Amino acid sequence: MSDNKYAQVKLISKPDNLLKTIYTACRTCYSSDSPLNIYECENAQNEEKMLKLISKVISSGHYSTIEHIQISFAISNISRACSHQLVRHRHMSFSQKSQRYVKEKEQFEYLIPDTIENNPELKAKFEQFMGKISDFYLELTSAGIPAEDARSVLPNAASTSMVASLNLREMIHLANLRLCTRAQKEIRILVKRMCDELIKEEPWLKDYLVPKCERLGYCDEDKSCGRKPAKG
Amino acid sequence: MSDNKYAQVKLISKPDNLLKTIYTACRTCYSSDSPLNIYECENAQNEEKMLKLISKVISSGHYSTIEHIQISFAISNISRACSHQLVRHRHMSFSQKSQRYVKEKEQFEYLIPDTIENNPELKAKFEQFMGKISDFYLELTSAGIPAEDARSVLPNAASTSMVASLNLREMIHLANLRLCTRAQKEIRILVKRMCDELIKEEPWLKDYLVPKCERLGYCDEDKSCGRKPAKG
Amino acid sequence: MSDNKYAQVKLISKPDNLLKTIYTACRTCYSSDSPLNIYECENAQNEEKMLKLISKVISSGHYSTIEHIQISFAISNISRACSHQLVRHRHMSFSQKSQRYVKEKEQFEYLIPDTIENNPELKAKFEQFMGKISDFYLELTSAGIPAEDARSVLPNAASTSMVASLNLREMIHLANLRLCTRAQKEIRILVKRMCDELIKEEPWLKDYLVPKCERLGYCDEDKSCGRKPAKG
Amino acid sequence: MSDNKYAQVKLISKPDNLLKTIYTACRTCYSSDSPLNIYECENAQNEEKMLKLISKVISSGHYSTIEHIQISFAISNISRACSHQLVRHRHMSFSQKSQRYVKEKEQFEYLIPDTIENNPELKAKFEQFMGKISDFYLELTSAGIPAEDARSVLPNAASTSMVASLNLREMIHLANLRLCTRAQKEIRILVKRMCDELIKEEPWLKDYLVPKCERLGYCDEDKSCGRKPAKG
Repeated sequence: MSDNKYAQVKLISKPDNLLKTIYTACRTCYSSDSPLNIYECENAQNEEKMLKLISKVISSGHYSTIEHIQISFAISNISRACSHQLVRHRHMSFSQKSQRYVKEKEQFEYLIPDTIENNPELKAKFEQFMGKISDFYLELTSAGIPAEDARSVLPNAASTSMVASLNLREMIHLANLRLCTRAQKEIRILVKRMCDELIKEEPWLKDYLVPKCERLGYCDEDKSCGRKPAKG
Repeated sequence: MSDNKYAQVKLISKPDNLLKTIYTACRTCYSSDSPLNIYECENAQNEEKMLKLISKVISSGHYSTIEHIQISFAISNISRACSHQLVRHRHMSFSQKSQRYVKEKEQFEYLIPDTIENNPELKAKFEQFMGKISDFYLELTSAGIPAEDARSVLPNAASTSMVASLNLREMIHLANLRLCTRAQKEIRILVKRMCDELIKEEPWLKDYLVPKCERLGYCDEDKSCGRKPAKG
Repeated sequence: MSDNKYAQVKLISKPDNLLKTIYTACRTCYSSDSPLNIYECENAQNEEKMLKLISKVISSGHYSTIEHIQISFAISNISRACSHQLVRHRHMSFSQKSQRYVKEKEQFEYLIPDTIENNPELKAKFEQFMGKISDFYLELTSAGIPAEDARSVLPNAASTSMVASLNLREMIHLANLRLCTRAQKEIRILVKRMCDELIKEEPWLKDYLVPKCERLGYCDEDKSCGRKPAKG
Repeated sequence: MSDNKYAQVKLISKPDNLLKTIYTACRTCYSSDSPLNIYECENAQNEEKMLKLISKVISSGHYSTIEHIQISFAISNISRACSHQLVRHRHMSFSQKSQRYVKEKEQFEYLIPDTIENNPELKAKFEQFMGKISDFYLELTSAGIPAEDARSVLPNAASTSMVASLNLREMIHLANLRLCTRAQKEIRILVKRMCDELIKEEPWLKDYLVPKCERLGYCDEDKSCGRKPAKG
């Protein structure tokens, strides 16, 4: 399975005036002017000036100013193993496809981990096994077992989809944690694609949507992957 | 002081496709279709159909689907007493004018409570007193006392401003609590104006942005104001 | 499988002076006395007087006063389907057994839903099927596939365990939502057992740890189970 | 005013088995054993072994394991300026003395900032001014103005008190931010005293309850105070 078989991610919603809102928030803290005047002032029409200030504020770690921006993603083709990791981010909002209410009618979709994909024999067995699970699931639902109970045979590999939203502060935190090579490959690819979608529209964010070691200057995990040295 | 002397509120930011995002979130939970397909399907182009579903979902209390929408307000001319109440809403994000970093150069602005405003004698004394506080504040800063310490003489009446953001779930919660007559008048007017700003753009929200008694069908406070009967 | 085969739950930690802390919090809001004096005053040694005040405050919906109390549970023998539901409570804290780092050495443990348990033929097939999944999992790990990838074949029925903590406000919210018959049976039993553990030590909480319809006086779901009438 | 005139802080509540709870949480993630067995195992009776593991886990940045511990403080004699800063920590729980419901009967208590305290002339004027504010407040309430409106003349210097609770993860975050010399002196002393109270009972925490520069190895503020060098 090539990487493009992993998560499908589409940015579906962001504020209509992202930069001006952050800029207004940053300036409001230090200005005697009203936020509405700041919002409508000359500087707030000048992208370059706004970016310069915003960049300085984020670098100082004053992240509350970027909480005002929330973005939403349509995500599909991730495994339930991956979604169980993602929903542990408690500052995020999720609307996930329910295995209780959505009954599978035919072979459920699933993800094959690369390590299995790369071994033709195991891959064939894996696919065959997914077929057997599907057969048993369908036997259970045909026998009148409700979907919410029949799903107990479905594997972690089964795919799910969701709408997920988060503010820019949590987006940077998510990237810092989950782009680290210690994160599992599937969620790393998912988060990378979320970042790519956002950077396509807001290129100035690319310096912040990086593994944590890039922000810290060192690796704080047990073992460094080599990208940055271990903490002295 | 007439009511229009209270908070100045302007909605400065909301997602560019609010209804479609909520609709997609609601449908994703119960559909075998991917969120992206839902987002681009025919129904998601039909405001009436979307509103019908959304209204049913919110009425059932499944509020997580509306967390995907965040809105931002520019707020000015509220007292520090009021802002101390507002920032207690921990699901909100705030960027507030700092009394540490913004030094007053002349008479600070302030709010006069209605009960004082309506008594001409007390009102005159109040305004005179605000002048005396300003004089002492300016004497302190002239003597080299930093703004962060000189501000200790500034009163709760002193005005402040902020950018405040919250998601739609918290917006409904805020309205439910703070439109209640038990809330202090100033924050009640502030939240009413936030609601009005939002309803101007999203009129379908007017049934939800109401005091909690309207949702519950009864008053759960110690004493009812008469709008709804006390809980039986 | 009888109900006592579901979640094993043990309350392992609570504050050493739960009632006094809540009482002090309630009184601090409305008293000119210092919290430390309130904490050491005569009334704070009288359980009955404390309970009377606390009960009044909670009934008025002023829940912030009970956030000061946090409790921790050791939970085992719940399915991954159930844990995926539980971790959606974002005000809770979790430390869950990792399927990435803990490799199964033999047949993994699992939960059989009642609807399958009650059908001897399906039950036998289910148990046999769990054996086949285990065999394939062990084949994968023997072939060098890391646990984090081999687990993709493990089913939702596989059991997990965790330490879970939450404050009293969230505990009441959890009970209100998850004791409702609309919640899936497994999480309903889990939450019931958490409530029972807590009520054993703090019997006064039994009036609050109930389905939401008991608090509201009506059912706000699509269809009432009959416990309370639908909202008028 | 000497430092001991600032905040009065008393730790009033913590879990009855703090270390064992954290230890059990840490081990649960990586063990095939149940949390209850871990809780009751031999190692969980050995403080030294528990501390060794916990220290390793915290150093790796896996802070969720320490969220299980919540602690409560009785705090008095802080200014409303300070409480407005403290309540911005949204992961904390607060029950604060209400200026709406608690009417001052005589001279309100207040805090004098050191920079004013240290100037005898300004100090005398400051104290005299607090007297004038008190006189006007009492005149307003005597004239029938409700406390919630009369308080608009009370200054930021007026003292307040509260019960405040937070988990150990937020406690470390609070210390990291507010022990930094960039924080205002009053909140720095408040947080220092909270830390001291906790360290008295849990000495092993002293390495974590430090300014953020001690954790990072460098200063990430605009200007370093000299404790650590600026980020390279």
